[in-house]
Amino acid sequence: MPGSPTPPEGTDQPFALDGLDALFEAKSIAVLGASSEPSKIGGRPIKFLKEGGYEGTIYPINPKHPEVQGIPAYRSLDDVDAPVDLAIVALPTGGVLPALESCVQHNVRAAVVFSAGFAEMGEDGAGLQQQVRELSRRSGMRVLGPNCIGAVNRRQRVYASFSAAIDYLADGSYRSGVAFVSQSGAIGPHCLTVARMRGLDFQTWVTTGNEADIEFADCLAYLAMDDSVNVIAAYIEGCRDGAKLKAALQLARDRRKPVIVLKTGRTTVGAQAAKSHTASLVGADAVYDALFAQYGACRVDSIEELIDTAYACSTGEFPQGNRIGFLTGSGGAGILMADQAAGLGMDVAPLPESAQRTLHELWPPAGVMNPVDTTAQVTNNPKLLGQFLDVVLNEGNYDSVLVFLTYVGLLPPWSEWVADALIDAKRRSPGSHIVASMLGTPESLQRLSEEKILVFDDPTAAVAAIHRTGRIAAGFAEQRAHDPSPQTVPMPSYDGAALNEYDAKRLLAQAGITVDAGVLATSPDEAAAAAERAGVPVALKVASPDLQHKSDVGGVVLNVGSPAEARERHAQIIDRVSRAASGAHIDGVIVAPMVSGGVETIIGVHNDPVFGPVVMFGLGGVFVELLGDVAYRLAPFDEDEAMAMIRSVRGHALLEGARGSEPCDLGALARMLAQVANFAAANADSVGSIDLNPVLALPDGAVAIDALIVPKD
Amino acid sequence: MPGSPTPPEGTDQPFALDGLDALFEAKSIAVLGASSEPSKIGGRPIKFLKEGGYEGTIYPINPKHPEVQGIPAYRSLDDVDAPVDLAIVALPTGGVLPALESCVQHNVRAAVVFSAGFAEMGEDGAGLQQQVRELSRRSGMRVLGPNCIGAVNRRQRVYASFSAAIDYLADGSYRSGVAFVSQSGAIGPHCLTVARMRGLDFQTWVTTGNEADIEFADCLAYLAMDDSVNVIAAYIEGCRDGAKLKAALQLARDRRKPVIVLKTGRTTVGAQAAKSHTASLVGADAVYDALFAQYGACRVDSIEELIDTAYACSTGEFPQGNRIGFLTGSGGAGILMADQAAGLGMDVAPLPESAQRTLHELWPPAGVMNPVDTTAQVTNNPKLLGQFLDVVLNEGNYDSVLVFLTYVGLLPPWSEWVADALIDAKRRSPGSHIVASMLGTPESLQRLSEEKILVFDDPTAAVAAIHRTGRIAAGFAEQRAHDPSPQTVPMPSYDGAALNEYDAKRLLAQAGITVDAGVLATSPDEAAAAAERAGVPVALKVASPDLQHKSDVGGVVLNVGSPAEARERHAQIIDRVSRAASGAHIDGVIVAPMVSGGVETIIGVHNDPVFGPVVMFGLGGVFVELLGDVAYRLAPFDEDEAMAMIRSVRGHALLEGARGSEPCDLGALARMLAQVANFAAANADSVGSIDLNPVLALPDGAVAIDALIVPKD
Repeated sequence: MPGSPTPPEGTDQPFALDGLDALFEAKSIAVLGASSEPSKIGGRPIKFLKEGGYEGTIYPINPKHPEVQGIPAYRSLDDVDAPVDLAIVALPTGGVLPALESCVQHNVRAAVVFSAGFAEMGEDGAGLQQQVRELSRRSGMRVLGPNCIGAVNRRQRVYASFSAAIDYLADGSYRSGVAFVSQSGAIGPHCLTVARMRGLDFQTWVTTGNEADIEFADCLAYLAMDDSVNVIAAYIEGCRDGAKLKAALQLARDRRKPVIVLKTGRTTVGAQAAKSHTASLVGADAVYDALFAQYGACRVDSIEELIDTAYACSTGEFPQGNRIGFLTGSGGAGILMADQAAGLGMDVAPLPESAQRTLHELWPPAGVMNPVDTTAQVTNNPKLLGQFLDVVLNEGNYDSVLVFLTYVGLLPPWSEWVADALIDAKRRSPGSHIVASMLGTPESLQRLSEEKILVFDDPTAAVAAIHRTGRIAAGFAEQRAHDPSPQTVPMPSYDGAALNEYDAKRLLAQAGITVDAGVLATSPDEAAAAAERAGVPVALKVASPDLQHKSDVGGVVLNVGSPAEARERHAQIIDRVSRAASGAHIDGVIVAPMVSGGVETIIGVHNDPVFGPVVMFGLGGVFVELLGDVAYRLAPFDEDEAMAMIRSVRGHALLEGARGSEPCDLGALARMLAQVANFAAANADSVGSIDLNPVLALPDGAVAIDALIVPKD
Repeated sequence: MPGSPTPPEGTDQPFALDGLDALFEAKSIAVLGASSEPSKIGGRPIKFLKEGGYEGTIYPINPKHPEVQGIPAYRSLDDVDAPVDLAIVALPTGGVLPALESCVQHNVRAAVVFSAGFAEMGEDGAGLQQQVRELSRRSGMRVLGPNCIGAVNRRQRVYASFSAAIDYLADGSYRSGVAFVSQSGAIGPHCLTVARMRGLDFQTWVTTGNEADIEFADCLAYLAMDDSVNVIAAYIEGCRDGAKLKAALQLARDRRKPVIVLKTGRTTVGAQAAKSHTASLVGADAVYDALFAQYGACRVDSIEELIDTAYACSTGEFPQGNRIGFLTGSGGAGILMADQAAGLGMDVAPLPESAQRTLHELWPPAGVMNPVDTTAQVTNNPKLLGQFLDVVLNEGNYDSVLVFLTYVGLLPPWSEWVADALIDAKRRSPGSHIVASMLGTPESLQRLSEEKILVFDDPTAAVAAIHRTGRIAAGFAEQRAHDPSPQTVPMPSYDGAALNEYDAKRLLAQAGITVDAGVLATSPDEAAAAAERAGVPVALKVASPDLQHKSDVGGVVLNVGSPAEARERHAQIIDRVSRAASGAHIDGVIVAPMVSGGVETIIGVHNDPVFGPVVMFGLGGVFVELLGDVAYRLAPFDEDEAMAMIRSVRGHALLEGARGSEPCDLGALARMLAQVANFAAANADSVGSIDLNPVLALPDGAVAIDALIVPKD
């Protein structure tokens, strides 16, 4: 079957696609707990399968009735004398495990478990769920759920769900190529209904419930591999296996499938206690932001945005740049849309002057720059809309053209005129990306839909959706390599021992990271000699594997002005620290030249329990601490990604020469970020966190002034 | 008539309400250009008036027909032998002025001019419009338009509009108390339609067109005075008379009418060239932001938000605080809503433990903190919703409770169950603020509407609307005095002459503003003596009324370490400046002690051509220049408003002791801001701009280190 996914070749992928075809493309389906009552949980799937025209065989399993909803029923799976791809389990909690065992015996390839009463119910339920998991692992039978609403593949007419939403408002428009995967049971049917109410149906739809076996990322990967799926909309709350989710997103990206994701938990504080300054800044949600940014997934903040964006992607036509033209019959709406687009960083470029002249001749009171405003004359002279559209489409060189047409599309004769004008214009300018914001009759909206002209009620929602689809297309176009760049130096291995600053810097230096290591002076005389050699002023800092916060114990003295002072300060530091932190081992005192100039930045690494090492970048001073102006990326990543990361912080202009300063060497900074990421990824098992604070971004180069590596617990 | 507005007593208001009753409450209406064809511009109002049940007399004016749409017609207004309140003018451009003249002769009190061809058509049209304006001023006859869609007052059944939207989807629900005023012709009917599609109708609705006479602010003031109007939704692009708009907003605020405003032009660059550093930061749109913030108007960014917020205000029930409880059948939606509320700064407080125990006993798998999650069990056990609601409403002490109920409200029997549960719970807990997010049948939505239970399709839109209505209520509750505080010193008068820094500071000092004035040394010896007295280090700055940027011409030397150096630097500065700016008059050199410590802030004033003096506040360094982190307010304002202004910038934590520094004296800073505003307001005719940069916010007090006053052109 052409649409049937096969795992990517030659790679050892962390997601498990085996047997998912038995769920999404089942040739035969047994319903355990089949009910004659079509409104019951065990009756609904049979009703949906029958009414939906399922072409495979349905085996209702019911010990009491010889027939269920007109289909011959079986007392048990043992009585079914044929292979069964998929079992739907709609039984009380206690019956689930025996039922699944019988499925395994019958070589059933996949099961959907609707039943609740598992991990969501506390410890006993969690134990039961673990047994389901083990059964699946042991037998190879894939299990969706338990406690899930099921899955639907309308192309294959597989309806393995009991949600009342499945057939509500369903019509023939399922060949949208849009798939939806949800970790939430309630969000799944709700989004299905919201989507259908705005004219979008999901071709494939799955809710993953408690994820005893099949996880969100498995479904994502399966949908990415399915050639009939073009767009994946998703709702996610969290995941246990970061590598799997990362790989699934990468697969979708590689296969050019837009992934639009609503992830909740923005304000949830991560579970791990913050061990270092950097870690305290990494909320778990920020890691997801990094993941989505890095793998080109489009994160949205509401159900409305999720559905709007999936809808906008459903035509398969994307703006190939951010140059946007507006055509409107309302000057006010024109300003509103242009404001918003400009605020989003889009290019609201004026029409060429020759085009402006043409429009002015067509209708002198028209606004002819951009937005182009036909004025209300468009309702008196229906030809005007088509004439204006042609000029804007053919001469504006816009990547997208948004046409705002108010409410008149609801009323005849305008409803017809407006649809005609848009459709004719698109046919005359094939390849143009026309989007309409208007209210319209169901008939005209259907006509526009058939011509792949997107329609949004609200102009603001339209601009937002165009912006998001443009970013998705740009992400595909960039084709950034997300594997680490070839390493210029082999990454040194970190054994997980606590290191003093001097040793941490030497280790990082081996990883190609420029540090200001200084000299480790083990006596006052050595300190004086080091100051002499380095040239004053110097900084003196205690070197101890046991002290993460050196200043707190009097372990740092800056601006030491002479070798004699260095000698004196050395003794003082040893004395102070010995008293303030009596148990700490002191390796000596670092003597390093005072480096000045440049812009202070911070590079940190936090080893996330789910996603592994996450690198943070921010500007020093108020930016990180007061404004939380930081960017995250999952390690490893290359210099291009590092550069995107640097440019994504609000204060980045300061690095590029704002306020009269000399521009910093962004290349060197990006290299350092990528090397830190490489080092952290190579030592993911031993690094807990890394804190390079400050890193001075200089006009020529970048240097880490302080460094702390905290071992993993 | 009880609802008829009378202007506020004892005040000399800038808005003009006289005669607006003849527009909105016309007892008799003549239609000039009346058409027998109900779809024509001159026919529609007659159709609307007839079908809408207008109780006054309609006088169709048509020289060719004795009868129009079944109503006796007149050849001209001269033939009408009765007083006419309102004339609707639906004539070609050329006929408008003669028609208006005939109206004046007939003592018609108000006219609505639909006709286009005026200022929007260039110079000739503008001349014609000026004649309309003069006719109105001369005669006292009020004119709405020209080039407008008209006005409707459904309570009085006055339909003076030709928009096809007027009767589309119209039903009996007009007693919403919600009025809408629009500067855009197309936005007006569009919003009317969008509102009706979500169950909200506008009681009064007006589009102001070219505003030859009646302006947006006049309508706003009229609606604020109309006792039957409770909420005002508005669309505005700009205004010519800032004082009038200010007064109208103040009137609405004083009368506790929420004003929700969609203003376009956020990214439009103001027309005036920026003369000083401060002015360059004041975009015209920022002034509107200040205006709305100051007068409690709720600014929104989309048509959807405008209608949603007006709808949310329409019940007259507002959350009295920002403590919000969530009840949901979807754990996912619960997190989504709680995330958003927390992100907006709302208090997602957990239920008291006793209430949590009660809920746990009702249904052990439920989430019982906040969000409270009934789980999908709510669809199996309809009683559960009411039981949970009672606990949350009675024991949660929430200012609002948002209930998310997915799509099931669309499907029987849940559609009834859900409406019953919400309505019964609200009746059992009168005064509680229950908002629902759900999809529902028209019948159940109607029932909920009758019980004043707000319903939003999208949970994110619901949270946003609750947040905005809460802020509106908080604005009313604060009852902040928006007149300036009693001035502690009489404001000195500024004559508009160019001043050097020394004189500018002395003038500001008279206004009660703490400045670091220093000493004006007119010779090197005086500079040395001044340095001696002040104590080194000192700063030396050239004093010239002709030099706004002293550093650019070598006119500033900082950290002068001795009287001898001061003597030398004085001569050097005079020499350098004389050569660099040969025409500039030099009054001497200011010698001032170097003040250090504290946090650098900037206070600026820009004299806006529409709104008069606008005060800007921001933190120095990267905040203003790089991040644009500034707040604006229209002068004058009091210290409370100044404090709100200070707290509204993102970096304000830096003033309150963030990053280990001592907290600044915010009171002193607020006093200075208010005094600067008072001074600017008192000298609005002569001040062009003021730039106090930096102003040091100190642990005890605040002091302006530099000052520049630029005269008004």
